[in-house]
Amino acid sequence: MIVLCTDFGPTGPYVGQVKAVLARAAPAVPVIDLFADLPAFEPRLAAYLLAAYGGWFEPGDVILAVVDPGVGGPRGALAVEADGRWFVGPDNGLFEVVLRRAGRARCCAIAWRPPALSATFHGRDLFAPIAARLALGEAPTGAECAPARHPEWPDDLAAIVYVDHYGNAMTGLRATRLADGTELEVAGRRIARARTFADVAEGGPLWYENANGLAEIALNGGSAAARFGLAPGSPVGLHPSV
Amino acid sequence: MIVLCTDFGPTGPYVGQVKAVLARAAPAVPVIDLFADLPAFEPRLAAYLLAAYGGWFEPGDVILAVVDPGVGGPRGALAVEADGRWFVGPDNGLFEVVLRRAGRARCCAIAWRPPALSATFHGRDLFAPIAARLALGEAPTGAECAPARHPEWPDDLAAIVYVDHYGNAMTGLRATRLADGTELEVAGRRIARARTFADVAEGGPLWYENANGLAEIALNGGSAAARFGLAPGSPVGLHPSV
Amino acid sequence: MIVLCTDFGPTGPYVGQVKAVLARAAPAVPVIDLFADLPAFEPRLAAYLLAAYGGWFEPGDVILAVVDPGVGGPRGALAVEADGRWFVGPDNGLFEVVLRRAGRARCCAIAWRPPALSATFHGRDLFAPIAARLALGEAPTGAECAPARHPEWPDDLAAIVYVDHYGNAMTGLRATRLADGTELEVAGRRIARARTFADVAEGGPLWYENANGLAEIALNGGSAAARFGLAPGSPVGLHPSV
Repeated sequence: MIVLCTDFGPTGPYVGQVKAVLARAAPAVPVIDLFADLPAFEPRLAAYLLAAYGGWFEPGDVILAVVDPGVGGPRGALAVEADGRWFVGPDNGLFEVVLRRAGRARCCAIAWRPPALSATFHGRDLFAPIAARLALGEAPTGAECAPARHPEWPDDLAAIVYVDHYGNAMTGLRATRLADGTELEVAGRRIARARTFADVAEGGPLWYENANGLAEIALNGGSAAARFGLAPGSPVGLHPSV
Repeated sequence: MIVLCTDFGPTGPYVGQVKAVLARAAPAVPVIDLFADLPAFEPRLAAYLLAAYGGWFEPGDVILAVVDPGVGGPRGALAVEADGRWFVGPDNGLFEVVLRRAGRARCCAIAWRPPALSATFHGRDLFAPIAARLALGEAPTGAECAPARHPEWPDDLAAIVYVDHYGNAMTGLRATRLADGTELEVAGRRIARARTFADVAEGGPLWYENANGLAEIALNGGSAAARFGLAPGSPVGLHPSV
Repeated sequence: MIVLCTDFGPTGPYVGQVKAVLARAAPAVPVIDLFADLPAFEPRLAAYLLAAYGGWFEPGDVILAVVDPGVGGPRGALAVEADGRWFVGPDNGLFEVVLRRAGRARCCAIAWRPPALSATFHGRDLFAPIAARLALGEAPTGAECAPARHPEWPDDLAAIVYVDHYGNAMTGLRATRLADGTELEVAGRRIARARTFADVAEGGPLWYENANGLAEIALNGGSAAARFGLAPGSPVGLHPSV
């Protein structure tokens, strides 16, 4: 299975061209659109999403991840194997949190270049062919390498990393790392934990452990992002219970 | 064929995770994205869309329908067979109109639970595995049941149930139930029936029988939703000709 | 491979119903979503996109293109073979630029009609079944014809034809036709050419040859469309270097 995680947008020709490349190179491999709207230009925020969502897939699956504001410049290209899953994309921090949490990981610099490499669309020209080969079970051709690391990034990020269609706002915090009774604060408002939407009054706020382990802020039947003015990057305060 | 009708949104990881589950459980079954933007939190409006669009599919097809504001609460989970098609989703009225119009129907309570069931994403954890099994021809495992019914909902709904990308506004009214010469009224404006867009002046309004039998309000070359301020739930007046 | 290029929108049931028809008629043929948001009601703008993006596909592929404000009226239905690729859609100028640039082309009037043809959704009822047959290698059944031509349209269009998710604005100009040093002007601002985003200062504007050969206007790390107020149809000035 090849899993697409990009900032290419829900519209436009980019995802389609990537899929056309994959359909020709690995026609029997299913391709899943996971995210087409990772925060654009923001590899740091995407790194926490990739760690939370990538781990849900299975060994042998390939996550093709592209948030690549430096495309065509000097940044490298990576294939990362983490606990049996492959992650393919630019060497700009996207895989920092995956690497940090992996039990076993190795990084290969992608040395192969296609006959024609555009300056601005490495997702189609470089990363998709590599993802197809890895999904078919081929070994990566590049040498093992040490990617650029970001030790200054925290293990869990107290900020919004994604806002979904309902206006639910995912944080970069793993819910299991938050002590019982912890409240999250956004826009000056403290929010208590609940199990699911219907456990609070209609229109009321809650935070909960989402289906991939992240602490997520929502309203029951409304948009938390609209109510609290949340967007990717918005800070989140932590108030452990006393 | 498995048909996805949800309010998960055109972006975000929800449709992708559902498809990953389906790709593993029923890899040879095509999966079609029909609606990812059913009116959120509004099973009643979606019920009229599901009846109009579900019937276009074929016996043996499985419609996986999720508009589920009560996820994780006490509402039940249903597999409904209606005229040979399966509908899978929460027991909250989503299938009320399908049931009412079906020549032959039966409802099964989904008793199976997965080893890990999240509190907020039954589409992925519960409904998708069930849909895969039904699409593979397996019989449902639950007992026949009597779902919650909504006799107070009309057979045809004089309201907007969906606004598309062009700004065309679908009503919950079947066009064949409207007498010749009927005008529809929105925002104080009476609109006459036409066959297709080009049958009225450029920029002019019309209503017509859409390709799935619903009365739909549009402009020729513009957005009726923007012109008349229409959104899901907006009321529609009926003026039969005299 | 069947490639979908429509103005049906990223949401709503239209793309899904087309894909359901294709999945039944040609289940082994991959279907790629290239554009679901071609400028609505604007076959002229889409014509330049189809020429730039259609040529990236391979002989034998079928591009199903629908921007069809005259659906249900007198406009014809076309299957165009251009350098081995098929283009299927309404006879309203959509294929004007493809035809003009093709080394070898022929046009067939689609005479076949389905048993049930809706007045407003020929994409599903007429064009999709034809596209499936062509993708399976069947010959078109209609007679060769002379489509409506648009000699007044330029070979390259000095206007925005598409704005993507990042706010990058594609023009209808082929970059290889622009002399070295050419600047593009939008909103009174002259913009110089660069190779890729990172070659200009953060937040600065550039134009570049995009991955399909069109001149495209962007910011490094921002939205050119928002900065300069660009939308499909916005004019672009040309300033060759002196």
